[in-house]
Order: sequence, then structure tokens, then C-alpha cells
Amino acid sequence: MGSFFETHRATLDKALEAIKTRDYWSAYPEAPSGRIYGETANKDGLAAFDSYKDSAFDLAQPGTVGQIGEEVSPYGFPLNITYPQADLDVLLPAAQAAMKTWAKADINTRTGVCLEILHRLNQRSFELGYAVMHTTGQGFMMAFQAGAPHAQDRGLEAVAYAYDEMQRTPANSRWTKPQGKHDPLVMDKKYRVVPRGVSLMVGCSTFPTWNSYSGLFASLATGNAVVIKPHPKAVLPLAITAKIAREVIAEAGFDTNLVTLATDSQAAPITATLATRPEVRIVDYTGSTQFGDWIEDNARQAVVYTEKAGVNSIVIDSSDDFKGMIRNLSFSLSLYSGQMCTTPQNIFIPKEGISVGDDHMSFDEVTNALAQGVSKFLSDPDRAAEVLGAIQNPATAERIAEASKLGDVVLASEAKTNPRFENASVHSPVIMKLDANQEDIYMQELFGPIAFVIATDSTEDSLERAARGAREHGAITSAIYSANDEVLEQAEDLMAEAGVALSCNLTGGVFVNQSAAFSDFHATGGNPAANASLTDSAFVSSRFRIVQSRRHAVTVAV
Amino acid sequence: MGSFFETHRATLDKALEAIKTRDYWSAYPEAPSGRIYGETANKDGLAAFDSYKDSAFDLAQPGTVGQIGEEVSPYGFPLNITYPQADLDVLLPAAQAAMKTWAKADINTRTGVCLEILHRLNQRSFELGYAVMHTTGQGFMMAFQAGAPHAQDRGLEAVAYAYDEMQRTPANSRWTKPQGKHDPLVMDKKYRVVPRGVSLMVGCSTFPTWNSYSGLFASLATGNAVVIKPHPKAVLPLAITAKIAREVIAEAGFDTNLVTLATDSQAAPITATLATRPEVRIVDYTGSTQFGDWIEDNARQAVVYTEKAGVNSIVIDSSDDFKGMIRNLSFSLSLYSGQMCTTPQNIFIPKEGISVGDDHMSFDEVTNALAQGVSKFLSDPDRAAEVLGAIQNPATAERIAEASKLGDVVLASEAKTNPRFENASVHSPVIMKLDANQEDIYMQELFGPIAFVIATDSTEDSLERAARGAREHGAITSAIYSANDEVLEQAEDLMAEAGVALSCNLTGGVFVNQSAAFSDFHATGGNPAANASLTDSAFVSSRFRIVQSRRHAVTVAV
Repeated sequence: MGSFFETHRATLDKALEAIKTRDYWSAYPEAPSGRIYGETANKDGLAAFDSYKDSAFDLAQPGTVGQIGEEVSPYGFPLNITYPQADLDVLLPAAQAAMKTWAKADINTRTGVCLEILHRLNQRSFELGYAVMHTTGQGFMMAFQAGAPHAQDRGLEAVAYAYDEMQRTPANSRWTKPQGKHDPLVMDKKYRVVPRGVSLMVGCSTFPTWNSYSGLFASLATGNAVVIKPHPKAVLPLAITAKIAREVIAEAGFDTNLVTLATDSQAAPITATLATRPEVRIVDYTGSTQFGDWIEDNARQAVVYTEKAGVNSIVIDSSDDFKGMIRNLSFSLSLYSGQMCTTPQNIFIPKEGISVGDDHMSFDEVTNALAQGVSKFLSDPDRAAEVLGAIQNPATAERIAEASKLGDVVLASEAKTNPRFENASVHSPVIMKLDANQEDIYMQELFGPIAFVIATDSTEDSLERAARGAREHGAITSAIYSANDEVLEQAEDLMAEAGVALSCNLTGGVFVNQSAAFSDFHATGGNPAANASLTDSAFVSSRFRIVQSRRHAVTVAV
Repeated sequence: MGSFFETHRATLDKALEAIKTRDYWSAYPEAPSGRIYGETANKDGLAAFDSYKDSAFDLAQPGTVGQIGEEVSPYGFPLNITYPQADLDVLLPAAQAAMKTWAKADINTRTGVCLEILHRLNQRSFELGYAVMHTTGQGFMMAFQAGAPHAQDRGLEAVAYAYDEMQRTPANSRWTKPQGKHDPLVMDKKYRVVPRGVSLMVGCSTFPTWNSYSGLFASLATGNAVVIKPHPKAVLPLAITAKIAREVIAEAGFDTNLVTLATDSQAAPITATLATRPEVRIVDYTGSTQFGDWIEDNARQAVVYTEKAGVNSIVIDSSDDFKGMIRNLSFSLSLYSGQMCTTPQNIFIPKEGISVGDDHMSFDEVTNALAQGVSKFLSDPDRAAEVLGAIQNPATAERIAEASKLGDVVLASEAKTNPRFENASVHSPVIMKLDANQEDIYMQELFGPIAFVIATDSTEDSLERAARGAREHGAITSAIYSANDEVLEQAEDLMAEAGVALSCNLTGGVFVNQSAAFSDFHATGGNPAANASLTDSAFVSSRFRIVQSRRHAVTVAV
């Protein structure tokens, strides 16, 4: 039990080191390889996924009043899984009660339990990968990586931040104040980490684990109970997570209701009710701006961390590696059919064109090259199927069709077929050409594989619009291509002020829509796209309070 | 300029060490001694204070449209000082503009400027002591200590937390991700501390510096500009603070408008307007619960840190040092006429009485001993004048009169005279006896020298009421007297859950209403009395964001 901490101490120490150096590090291998995860891991994971289908997922939670479920794989088949429907008047008090012993456990014990949960989640990465694939529509490779090891890394990162933050204040101190010729005043003091209360984790439909694990583990490590409210279309990955967590918690001798699942349906959502319950003192939310704003405005009894929508921009000023740029952007625009909160949408290019090495390319030459790049990249059906994945939400497919009317289409979206799943909803990106003054069209998030190439007066104009878009409408990523160091520095200043991370001249195997745990911060909390960052100390330090007790020390005369 | 950091580096290092060990430490001597502060320091400080009277305080701020002031010393004379009245449409943009270069300065430079400001404030401690005395009504010794060195310690503590928090992420990193047989991916990353925006510091009338310096220096160190909005009855200490800050900022080559003063009047308050201005992204507030709640509800564009009202309790279970207890409580109830947010109000005692060593004392014996203790303690006119100070707000004097009708008076409040200031408003504490069921009377803050002794069924009943009072109505301090270790442990658990610091069996020279910087946390943020703690990392970590930039590293082949 206490030994979970010792077992995983080296992992924790490396994580603590990584968040300080911010060099590359990962605790959980991202290769879906039998050599790493076991020769039968893939087969076992798929079998585990299949076994959930057409049945009731049992969590043995208190207050279960029914079973509900409505998940449909974006690859074209219903999952037919039902999950416990909870009576919140039973579930929330049970979560509160579970905190009693957990809050009093020492920091190492709680940290050890979190690390063991992450370890077991990692062992189940294939199973989680299939669960993520068939709820989100991500291709398997991405579902495995982003849904399992990368999500686990983000969870571990949060545990490391929480541990570091809790350890900053000692559990005990002796305070000795000199009093001149008199005896000193001597006090013994105790400092206790006191959790805030029940923590609500609201999952999203596109990254049910990746966007949830930071909040889940930050709250759990700091002594809170966590109620997971998954998106009704992406329950399974979080149900498996909850089950694994409950198993480890029970083995460690704590109350399993520290982690519970509260499932709802699209017809009868419960998030608004849950988020405003007095027992709920922390909310982590990923989803629409409208509902995120509602939670921020109404869940006043809680500390609220939100990630909402944004408008991500790319500024193209000039390039020394045009082919690399086009290749890199083609992948970024195609990956998971643009259904990432980090996918670029607005590509600003001077209407007079750009310098490419010693040459000049016109605006149309650049945009055509981009369209051809994406088209060529997706011409291989297997690659297209894997990279594009499937459209998670039918509304996204409709949005593609509608969006195509908004500008001159440079690249039309194609409905594609997946060689293995004939009913999968697959759509390649649409790229449209706009003028810079058409802000009413492009200064809003059009979620999905929808991008605009926007003709501006100059790079300065591009930068101003990109920064203003981030500042006013939010952005999680931004990128610039320029062969001019001064322009890069100017972009760094402007994007820093707009509170958005900047990627410069990405041409190789790093993409603007990807962030690496322990090194890259995901969102900043500094613009409307998110009020929090994964993970900084602000993300963990308000999840608990330090409460002290002091008394005169019993000192022994020398 | 850069050398401010080097000059004060040892002080910073000691502060960083102190917040980790939480042993006694202070950077600024609390003794108002000529040997420490210079033989003429007292005389010079008084002369400086006198020089402000009957004149206009000049800060050379932009947007000054008039001069206002309405301060009256609680010792019985008007100050006749006027301060700049600001056009907020000029002042706030000036504050924003001042952040440009400040935000880009490196962490050490900003920290150095903050440390130099604190150093110069310390040199002016006598002047600040008189300014605090004649705005708050504190006795000079307390005004000097709490208003100058202790406030400076709290400011330094905030600088140390801010420095520590900003330093946790490196300014640069190199990220090297292995790619098997291929060349690794190598990225160079920059991480920048980006301040949130203009920070509004709303001062209170009783502790204009002590309650303000944590927020002021936490915001300034993290790159924000600070607009100080003093209470109209306690402007001078913060005007002197602003002037010193502006002088240091100018010497360091930054824009003086990083620290500005926005003075208002009781007839035309500007805090609500200021707190909801879009430029204002941080608010620090000390004051009434009603207005604090309003700011929390309405300043939605800002991160808001509040300290509001509470109901502080003392539970008397038993004692091995009854005289020490009475002596200690007599001082706590008398100090600054109970005008501290940390003064105990509700003293719970079992109606069947308590054990004192091997003896038993009835409820009435305990309460009479307390009344006599306070009375005797204040029987020396000089000591009474120094400890009680004067009543800051006429409403407090009225409240004492009204409160005396609420229960059986055990000790009546006396109007006293101050030997040196014949017009000073001096009132000793009133103590009343209540039954435990009279919660409508005692479960609210009655600010001032007003205390209740409350007869409960048992210590368990006392603890339940004290904890519930903190949980539901807020509390910044709590204390227990018990010779029973189990009772002390029970109290620790209950008060930890209620989010209130506990002092056990204080009988010597440490008092429940005093907290020591670097060791004691002031408030926890865990109950309605305050949503923040002075100082923990949650208090500093949301005042800035980290924004990154990354690009492919230019690697040189070996």
C-alpha cells in the first residue's frame, strides 16, 4: 500500500526533473508495440474492447438507479454499452464521505496511489486506444498515443506538479523567536494539506482521456474526490479509467468512491446540475465556449478550470524550406480531420505573396501549393484513413458543407471511405480563400477540417489579426513561418501578449497541433480559449489549502 | 539598476529558505529603536508625518483632475491632506502602458526593484508608523510594527513566493526526442512570464499596509502594474508607499506608472467602477463581506483575492495554566480595541464549567476571571492607551453601545481617555454572556471590542459550533485551551476541515490574533472569511501566465 509510492518513486523523480528542465521525457512508451506492451497486448486490448460491447458496464457505485448509454462509433456502428446512472443525492455524499480518510493520508501515500493508477492505465493502453478510437473517431495510432500514453504522461505531469506544490510547505516546523536576554518564544507548528472538496471532471467527446487526466489526477493527488462526467458520446475510455482507479484505491485501503462516474445522455444532461451542487468545489471542463462560460458564471461555489473554443492562426511571412512547410501544414490540417482544439484554422498570407529563398511566390501560388500538398498527402487511402480518422459528430460534417459556401474554395472537402470501416464518416479538409476584412467569417471557431487562407496587406497586418484573434476570441496554438529573425521576434512578443503559444518554422516531425507533456504547456489561461494551462502551478495550487495548528513547544532545558 | 537584485540577494535567499523551513525569520527589525533605525529616526519620522498635514500630497501622476482627502486621526484631529484624484480613462491606460517594458524585464530585475522598494519602505518605518497610527487608530508601537516591518515582511514573503513560482519554469530549454535510428527531433523552446494585466489593490482602513503589501508585491514582482485604491480614511500610508515605489521604479529606468494611487471619497466611491474595468485583471481586496462578495460576483474579468469578515472562536475545555490563559486572552481581546480581523469574538465554555489542573471552575468563575483579567490589564492608563489605541470608525463605537444590549454584560465597555490625545475615541472591550442557542446574535461578525462568552453543553458542542461558525460564516483564527491531547487533536481535525488556523493553549507571548510572516499563513482561503491565504503559491501563481515559443534547433553536426 505505502509501497506504491516506493515502487513508482523513480518515475515521480524523473517527472519532477522533467518539469524543471522541460527536456523531452515520457514515462509511458508511445509506440503501440508488442515488444513494449507484450506480444498479445494488441489482441487482448481489442478483445477487451469487444467484450464491453452490447453489455452493461459495471462499476458497483452507490446510488445507481439505472443504466444508460448512447455511444456510436464514428467508424459506423453502435457500441450498445450502458453505464450506471447515478442518483446525485447519493453519489455526491458518497464522494464527500470518501474524502475523509483520503484527506488525512500523507502526501506520499496519495501520490503513490495516483502513480499506480497511471501505471495500470498504461498497461491497458491498447484497450484504452480502441475505446478512444471508437468514441472519438481518431485513427488507431493517434487514439493509442493521445488517448493512452500521452494522456497518462499529462496525468503524471499533474501528479508531479501537485506533489511539488504540496511538498513546498513542511508538515511540521519549530519556530524560535529570540527575545533578547529572555528565553526565546518557541512554537511547534503543523501544516496540513486540506482538499477543497468534490471535484467534477467534465470530459469532452474528442479527447476524453487526454483532456481529462490533468484535472483528474491534480484533484485526486491533492486529496479531493473526483466525479467524472463523461461526454455521453465518449464514456467508455473514462469508464475504464474510473474502474481501474477504483480498483487501485480499494487495494490501497481507501474508499472506492473517491473516483466515480456520473453518466448522462444528450437528451437529459446533468452537467449544469452537477457543476452547481454545493458539494462540488472544483470543476474541470473541456467543451464549448458557450457552456464553459455558463459554468464559469454559475458554478460560483467552485474553482473552475475551463478549456473552450479558439481560433488558431498561422502567419506565413517567408520561408527557406517551402516544401517542408507545406508538408508540415498538410499533416496539421489533416490530422484527425481538424477536430483538435489545436488545429490551425486561419492562415494569413500577404496578398502580395512571400519570399521563398531568393524567389518570390504569389498569394495564389502559396495557397495552391498548400491545397495540392493536402490533397497529395491524403491521396494514399490507407494513410488518409489513419490520419483523418472519422468525424466524431454529425454536426461537424454538416458544418463542412455549410462552410464551403463561405469563401472561394481552394481545396474542396471530399467524403472518403475507410478501407476497413465502410460506414465510417470520413471527410478531408476544405480550404477557402478570404480577404482580411471578412472577419465576420473567420474570427470564430469553425470546428472540424475547415481552414481559411486569408489575404492580408502585409505580415504586420497578418500578425496583428492573428494576435487580436487570440486575444479576443481565444487560441491555443499559433505558428509563424519566416526566414526573418526580426519578424520571428515580433511574433514572439505579440503572441506572448495575446497569451498563445507560438511555433516557429515547423517543417519536420513536430506539428503545431501537438504539445509534449513535461515540456510544452497546453493553453496558457491567458486568452478566452482557456482559463487554465496544462500544467502549471496555478492549475494545482488552488485545489487544496494549507491549514495550520500551533502550540508552545515543550522544550527541555539544557 | 540590475544591482538592486545583487544588493538584496541575501535577503531574498533567506526569505526563500524561511518559507520552506517556516522557522522564525524577519528581514525588517520590529523594534522601534534608534540603535537600529538611527538615533533621529523617530524624530525624523514624526516630522515627516507632520509635514504631510495641511497640504497636498504630490505624486505627479497622469490624469490628475483634482485633489481630495478626508482623513481624520482617530486620535482626534483632521489630517487635512489631499491626494490626486484621477481620471481613470487616463490612469488605467497609463498603468497598462507602463507594463510594456516591465513585463519584458527579466525576473531578477523585477525582483530587485521590489526588494529595493521594501528596503526603502523599511528605512521610512517611523514615518509609516505615524501615518498608520493616525489613520487607523493603532497605538504607536503596534502601528510601527504591524504597519511597517511586519507589513514589509509580508511584502517580502510575497516577493519570495512570486520569485520561486516564476523560477520554476526555465527561460529556455532544449528538447531532444530520440527517433530510433533516425536523427532525434531537437527543438529550442523559450518560456516567458507574461503578467495578467493591471492589478487593483483595494486597501482597508484598519491595516492599510499590512493587508495590502502581499498583493501589491505579488502583482508587481510578476510583471503587473498596480493601482492602489486606499480606503478614503487611510490614504497616507499607501500614498507614501506609492511615492517610494515610484521613486525606485524611476531610478531603475522603468515607467513610474507601474504603481499609482487612485483616491476616492466616502461620498463618491470608485472601487466598484475600478474593479470592473476591462484593464483590471487582478483585484486584491480587504474589507466588508458584502462588498467583497459583490466584487467576486462582478469583477469577472479579473482574478479576485478577497479577505472579508469572519467569526473567530475560542474553545475553552480545560487548562493547566489558567492565569496564563486569562493573561493571554486579556491581551488578545484588548489589542487595538478588537479591530483586527483576527480578534476572537466567540468564547465557548461548557456550562458545567471546566477542569483547571486538579480543580473545577464553574462557567461563571471562568467568565468572571476573564472579565477581571481584561479589566486589570487595562487599569494602567498608559498601557490601556497603547494597547487599545483608538476606535477607527465612529460606527464601531456605536456598535459597542448597541451590542451591550444583546446579552448579560460580564464586562462593560468603558470610554477611556488617552493621556496624550484628549479627543481620541477610546473604548475598552465589552464581554457578554450568551446561551449556545443564541446563534442569531453571535454567528455574525460584530466588528470591534465585542466578545461573547457562550455556555455550551460540552466541549464537543463548543467545537461543533466553532467549526460550523468558521465553515458557514468564515473565520481567520481559532483557538483552543485544553489539557487533554485527544481534545486538541479533535480540534485540529475539525478546524482543518473548516479551513481555519488553530492556536492551542497560548499562554505566553504569542497571541491568537498575530501571525508571523514566513511561518504562519494568514487566512486559508478555505472558508468564507477569505478566498486567499497570505501567502501560499495559489496567491501568486495566477498573477502571471507562461507563454512559450519553440523552433527547430540549429544543431551543429559532430
